[in-house]
Formats: sequence, C-alpha cells, structure tokens
Amino acid sequence: MAGVGAVLAGAGRLEAADEIQGKKKLKPKFELGMTSYTFRQFPVDQAIAMTNRLGLKYICFKSMHLPLDSNQEQINETLAKVKEAGLELYACGVIYMNTADEVQQAFDYAKMAGIGTFVGVPKYDLLGLVDKKVKEYDIRVAIHNHGPGDQLYPTPQSVYERIKDLDKRIGLCIDVGHTQRIGIDPSEAVETYVGRLMDLHIKDVSSATAQGTTIEMGRGVIDIIRLMRTLIRIGYSGKASFEFEKDEKDPLPGVAESVGYTRGVLASL
Amino acid sequence: MAGVGAVLAGAGRLEAADEIQGKKKLKPKFELGMTSYTFRQFPVDQAIAMTNRLGLKYICFKSMHLPLDSNQEQINETLAKVKEAGLELYACGVIYMNTADEVQQAFDYAKMAGIGTFVGVPKYDLLGLVDKKVKEYDIRVAIHNHGPGDQLYPTPQSVYERIKDLDKRIGLCIDVGHTQRIGIDPSEAVETYVGRLMDLHIKDVSSATAQGTTIEMGRGVIDIIRLMRTLIRIGYSGKASFEFEKDEKDPLPGVAESVGYTRGVLASL
Repeated sequence: MAGVGAVLAGAGRLEAADEIQGKKKLKPKFELGMTSYTFRQFPVDQAIAMTNRLGLKYICFKSMHLPLDSNQEQINETLAKVKEAGLELYACGVIYMNTADEVQQAFDYAKMAGIGTFVGVPKYDLLGLVDKKVKEYDIRVAIHNHGPGDQLYPTPQSVYERIKDLDKRIGLCIDVGHTQRIGIDPSEAVETYVGRLMDLHIKDVSSATAQGTTIEMGRGVIDIIRLMRTLIRIGYSGKASFEFEKDEKDPLPGVAESVGYTRGVLASL
Repeated sequence: MAGVGAVLAGAGRLEAADEIQGKKKLKPKFELGMTSYTFRQFPVDQAIAMTNRLGLKYICFKSMHLPLDSNQEQINETLAKVKEAGLELYACGVIYMNTADEVQQAFDYAKMAGIGTFVGVPKYDLLGLVDKKVKEYDIRVAIHNHGPGDQLYPTPQSVYERIKDLDKRIGLCIDVGHTQRIGIDPSEAVETYVGRLMDLHIKDVSSATAQGTTIEMGRGVIDIIRLMRTLIRIGYSGKASFEFEKDEKDPLPGVAESVGYTRGVLASL
C-alpha cells in the first residue's frame, strides 16, 4: 500500500485515517466470551454472576463449575442457572484426556451439556480414538496449547502437526498468552491456523518468555490491537474468551479491565 | 477529504486505514486520573490502593478522603500515603463554597495540600471573592457542571458565562456525564471551552436525559472515541479523571472496565 501511503502524506494522512475510522469499517464476526477458569476459586453461581456483570453472554465451563462426572440431572440444573442468567454455555474445558475412558467421558459430558465444541488436551495415542468419537458424536474438539513446559502441545503448530490429517472437527483453541510466552506472535498464529481455529483464550502476559504471567490486557507485551485487527481480517467467527489467571481470589477487577480494553480496541477499529 | 476517500475506494481503503492506524499518529497530551469520589464508601487507604491497582498515577481527593477542616499535620499524613503509593494528588474537590469562610477555607486547604488546582462550586455572589483569592494564592479553580437540576452550573456554558471576564485561573472542570445528560455533546463542550478547560471528569451515562445514570464506559450513550479523539486534537493537556458513581459499595470492577475501555480506545487511535 505504499502508493496510497504516498497519497496520504502530510497533514491529510491523519485526517484520512480519522475519516476512515469514523466509518467503522472493521466489524468482528467473533463474539467475546468468558472462561470460567478465571473464576476457579468461586462457586458456579458467582462465576455466572460475574460473567453477567461484565456484560458477556458466552461462557466456557471448567470442570470445577460443571464436574466431568456429572449426570444429566446435575448438568441440567447448572444449565438452568446459565439460561436464567441470560448466558449461553458455548464450550467446556480444558478437559485433559489421558485414558480411553476419559475420552469417552468427555464426549458424553459434552453431549449431555448440549455443546458443539469442547476444549481438550488428548494424549497423542488417544488422537485416533478422539477422531472416531468426533465422527460418532459430531462434537468438535479444540486442542489447547500451553506454552513452555507443555510436553504435548506447547505451540499452535505442535497441535496442528498432530491433527492436520484428522477429521476437520478436530482443531485448535489458541491460547494467546501461552503462544506469546513461547515467543510466537499470536496474530501470526491465528492467521496461520485460521482454517482449524475453533476457540481462542485471550489475555495479556507480562513478558514473551516462559516466566511471563497473565496481566491485564493492554499492560503486557501482546499487541492486542494487531490481534483484534487480524481476527477481523481473517474473518474468525468463533469466540474469543477472556482467561485471567491473575488474582485468583479477586479476579473481577483485572478481568473487567481486560474486557473494557478489548471492547475499546474493537470499537475503535 | 472526499478526494482521498475516492483514492481509497474498494479493498485498498481498509488496508490503507490499517496502515495509517499502525503508525499510531494520535498521542494524547493529557493523563488519566481518578476522582476519589468513586471510592467514597472506602477509607483513604483503600481509595489509594484501588487507584494504584488500576495503574493510575493521578488522584483528586474528595473531602471524605481529605477533610476540608484538616490541619497541615493531618494533610501531610495523607500526602505521605499518596506519595508512598507512587501516586500524585493533582487536585481536590468538588468543594462547595456557599460562604466567604468556605472560600477562604478551600484556598487554605489547597495551599496546605500543595495542589495547583481545585474543583469547586462557588455561589455566584462569591465569584468576586474567588477571583481575588485566585490572584492572592495563585491556585486555579475549575468550576464543575452538574447537569439537569443544578441551580448554579448545569452546563459548561453556564460556567463559562459567569467566569469569562474573571481571572484566567478560574476555569472549567467539565463532567462529561452531566454534560451529556443535559443534551450537550461532551466533545463539542470540551472543544468550545478548551481555552478555560482545567480538568475533566470522564464516565459514560445510560441516557442523554436527566434520568441518565453513570454506567461502564463503552456501554452508554457517550461517544467516547470521539471524545478522546477531540481531546487529542485540541491538545488538552490536563487530566481526564474517572468518576464512577455506580456500585458505590463495589465500584472497582465497573471503574476498571471504564479504565480498560479508555486505554483501549486511546491505544487504537
């Protein structure tokens, strides 16, 4: 776009940017959501209430809020609370699958919960079984990368290499924090793997190293503006869910700041 | 800028906007701050801690956090806490001045606190005395508008009309919420009165009517993006301080969302 840049040289350049921004050309196809892991120290009622207070509609339950060994009645009871709050349970996880029984349990659980996708971490030798179950249940599995120290899926690439020849309903849940911590730009990762990108955990991190920890969005090293612009440009249409590991006993202010920051960025693009 | 718009027609238009935005041409000259009125149900130590947690440096104390009848020793004690937290007390207020004694007290208080500006509401017949004290103390007074129902200063214009011929050190603290509630666009107000604009209380409101109440920024009716862009364009160089009247017993999550939203907008312009 150097040619257009030249046309916009000087004072007019800024005004043109204003004019274009004023028209709000960039509309996301994705929705913001919440991972209940953020509220892992709180019972499910409070996790729902805090998500509601943030004005978010979509929630992904971690097992402390919907135990993996729940029966249908127990699941229905929790789903009723979700519905009453005006929320939608769009996914569950992260669900670790280390045995065939755990794979079976995960799919039964997801089916009983009525969700179309769960976020999972299957051992390598269970990927064949996961592939079979995906076809049997027509439920998608989004494999989550955990960055430095993760022996199975440290990077989005390490997920993709293992699943690329499997059923297309096996894909990625890219965690932008763990991706940045291992030195990979999350914007490049979502663009590279958009074809199999099913879910996204958004956050900021204090440094692009193994020592980096979650921090309020906008205060860390992740280029959130570029990430949001990339997600819009590639037409990502899943959820981008806040996961805030900091301040586990009082996470609401920090994650609220992250929600506000992300909304401010999206409104300005 | 229609000519440039034509050049940017079609697919190139979006990419050009991207390219220009990527250069972050818009840098604010103002700083974000906090009005301690947001934390009016909490003691000063918690008001300081919450401001610190939000990563804000500048604070404006309301009287419950620094009583108007404090002596120098008491003020120093509180100032030491502010300094220890790495904050800066940049203003006090809103201070109501209904008698000559209250005018005198306000200036003595501001002087003892070492601040250059306080936010005030003087009765009309005390404006002459305020004018005299401003010259005597070289301390600025920013008069605050309170919107519908305010008998003295409902609008920024009603402030300006009373002070335009007084010392230039008497100016405005525009409350963007009360301004919007009375049906005036805050962006127009800050632009019109920038020459006398000394402080700013930022928030969002649920409607542009007398019934409007404070709400998390980005959720209400104020065009925050336009306001921020206007403040940058007019070169406003004071403080823009969050004032969050909602959830007075638990204001931190809501004001954190507002802080995040504002930072997200500013980072994207």
